[in-house]
Amino acid sequence: MTLTKSNVNVEAQAMEAKKASKKLLVLSEEEKNQALLHLADVLEREYETILTANEKDLENGRKKDFTDAFMDRLSLSKERIAGFAQGLRDVAQLEDPTGQVLSDWTLENGLQVEKVTVPLGVIGMIYEARPNVTVDATGLALKSGNAIVLKGGSSAINSNQAIVEVMHRGLAETKIPKEAVQFIASTDRAATNELFTMKEHIDVLIPRGGGKLIQAVVENATVPVLETGVGNCHIYVDKDADVEKAIAILVNAKTDRPAVCNAAETLVVHKEWLEQYKDALITALKANDIGVHGDEYIQEIIPGSVLAGEEDWANEYLSTDIAVKAVDNLTDAIAHIETYGTKHSEAIVTEDSEAAEKFFALVDAAALYHNASTRFTDGSALGFGAEIGISTQKLHARGPMGLPALTTVKFLMKGTGQIR
Amino acid sequence: MTLTKSNVNVEAQAMEAKKASKKLLVLSEEEKNQALLHLADVLEREYETILTANEKDLENGRKKDFTDAFMDRLSLSKERIAGFAQGLRDVAQLEDPTGQVLSDWTLENGLQVEKVTVPLGVIGMIYEARPNVTVDATGLALKSGNAIVLKGGSSAINSNQAIVEVMHRGLAETKIPKEAVQFIASTDRAATNELFTMKEHIDVLIPRGGGKLIQAVVENATVPVLETGVGNCHIYVDKDADVEKAIAILVNAKTDRPAVCNAAETLVVHKEWLEQYKDALITALKANDIGVHGDEYIQEIIPGSVLAGEEDWANEYLSTDIAVKAVDNLTDAIAHIETYGTKHSEAIVTEDSEAAEKFFALVDAAALYHNASTRFTDGSALGFGAEIGISTQKLHARGPMGLPALTTVKFLMKGTGQIR
Repeated sequence: MTLTKSNVNVEAQAMEAKKASKKLLVLSEEEKNQALLHLADVLEREYETILTANEKDLENGRKKDFTDAFMDRLSLSKERIAGFAQGLRDVAQLEDPTGQVLSDWTLENGLQVEKVTVPLGVIGMIYEARPNVTVDATGLALKSGNAIVLKGGSSAINSNQAIVEVMHRGLAETKIPKEAVQFIASTDRAATNELFTMKEHIDVLIPRGGGKLIQAVVENATVPVLETGVGNCHIYVDKDADVEKAIAILVNAKTDRPAVCNAAETLVVHKEWLEQYKDALITALKANDIGVHGDEYIQEIIPGSVLAGEEDWANEYLSTDIAVKAVDNLTDAIAHIETYGTKHSEAIVTEDSEAAEKFFALVDAAALYHNASTRFTDGSALGFGAEIGISTQKLHARGPMGLPALTTVKFLMKGTGQIR
Repeated sequence: MTLTKSNVNVEAQAMEAKKASKKLLVLSEEEKNQALLHLADVLEREYETILTANEKDLENGRKKDFTDAFMDRLSLSKERIAGFAQGLRDVAQLEDPTGQVLSDWTLENGLQVEKVTVPLGVIGMIYEARPNVTVDATGLALKSGNAIVLKGGSSAINSNQAIVEVMHRGLAETKIPKEAVQFIASTDRAATNELFTMKEHIDVLIPRGGGKLIQAVVENATVPVLETGVGNCHIYVDKDADVEKAIAILVNAKTDRPAVCNAAETLVVHKEWLEQYKDALITALKANDIGVHGDEYIQEIIPGSVLAGEEDWANEYLSTDIAVKAVDNLTDAIAHIETYGTKHSEAIVTEDSEAAEKFFALVDAAALYHNASTRFTDGSALGFGAEIGISTQKLHARGPMGLPALTTVKFLMKGTGQIR
């Protein structure tokens, strides 16, 4: 990849963040919490500054004919800003993930060993439209003792910049140096690319947004990445599935919030179950306006279904459409999920506990469900308090990530002159 | 990076490994251990096959005029093979890192959540000369339920191939499919490069070897990497350091095994301490044949020291040479380590506990020592039983990595029809 230099000095900002991150290391939990609470107050107090900047982004968005959904995500209000502030107050309440002794022991020679959690250092956050990420990510980073470099989407650049300016004014009255929050004020893609290789100053990159953004970061970054993910989630209805549970779970996983990553995108269904319960299934699909893309077998059974192509099995519809695949047995269901799944969340509905065990053992995904909706793969639903994202990678953190995902460890060894 | 296709079918082998990894998921700890013990027996029984192949590598090495040290690492014997076998038996004794419930809780709606350790899947091991890695890495991979793709250095290709053939014959008599151990029988660099991007089939790459190899993997791989590291370790002798402790620690960290990554490469010394104890230091350096590369200040004090250039501060001598930097205070010492350290192991020698605390808080490294030698950053010294390598990265695993580094987690959710 050839990099062109952007019009802002990304490296200088990343270096400032690194320097500030050292100052965060010596702050107490109390000092960090007070800073977060103060930021919350300042955001609420200065909401008009933010709304004025937001209006510019909205105007640009209208000119560019953005979709209503997009405009809604971009749009701020006094209430939404109060929501951001509340988010910061909630994070202040959470347990400090740093300074925790994960294990400690003493060697025979008397050397004392402690494995302690510490901040990662500097987090690079690369995200798309939503301005709330600017506040949320800053809160999580600071609470865990990390500095942050923010690179938001160009459509929200005025809002993001105003939010950061307000937060900088707030930080000036706290123990956290304002340099701990860096905002890359550029709509230039080159600025994002520069972050990809800044290993000396940035400890981890977290992309939040669509598949393309995440792909670009994963493929081009030499800085380690926390991959948050796309979810092509499956509901497998087994031969011995209870019909009521199956239909309730399917409808919930598909329709509760179809645009989120833990929503179901494919129904994999055992042919014997389908034969027996097709009427109930068809009724439920119809009642919930679920559009079916089915294989040939399904087309015979479910009226009005569209013929599914190869792309349907891999597709995240993010709507109330669903792909439906009929299988002869559990093994074929697992093979289908293995081929097309994104290792996010997969569910089996069955009364056969052996089938559920096999599904749990063999399906490779962050979250596996037996007789429950995939919609629970979510930090707040699981009680984590705050969520950085849902990791679909296997290293460091998998599944919903809370504050501990923003820490690493140090081994601290206390001796009295021990040598080997 | 442009990839040329290698002369072996790397992708087919990686796919076989992935397929085999699924079979490992349903084996019991007992079945995995029995397989390891059997492999140990077979390696000892068939040692002559391995030695014959090793002789070919040694012959090639002699032709290429490899150094004595290199030839020694390459060279096998009946005893060394027995050592490999013992290594497998030791690994069989270790606790299974998979299937461990890290946490479990029940949501208010009754959904039961378990966070359980599971194998990563397929490990890609890219390593240099030492044939022992072929056995060690296989043992650790299989014990943790992972399949492995081995790509060793070309100078040991005959030995490695023979070892894998023997292990394959052994596995045929166990529950572990022999496809779980794949050996890329190619000296072609393109074969290594193919592994870099095989995200679908390989879950993690672990490079073992020199800095250049590790760099190449980190920079070019899209498969996640467990970076094992180079160690430019520092001993900082503070103003208030006890002279006996300081000298014993310095000599041990520098000379015990100078070629390993936890050996000290730079002495950072407080000028006041140096003034007071220079005679003792000079005597110790001389007695232990330690060659000094010092800054101008040091040159005045330590007779026979070579003038250190910028490259000395970053250098891993891996010999009994050492760089020596004089500083005015703790802050400058920390700044020097920050600039040139590799985040591996750093030590402070001092009787001032506040200085030690500051060093622990501010120095960013996997292992920090107060009044002890850096040589303890080692899985066996710390009691981990077996070591995959020493991670100098911050994500997933940091410092000495035992078997748990080869696992990830699954969230297993058991419900009775819960929806959101």
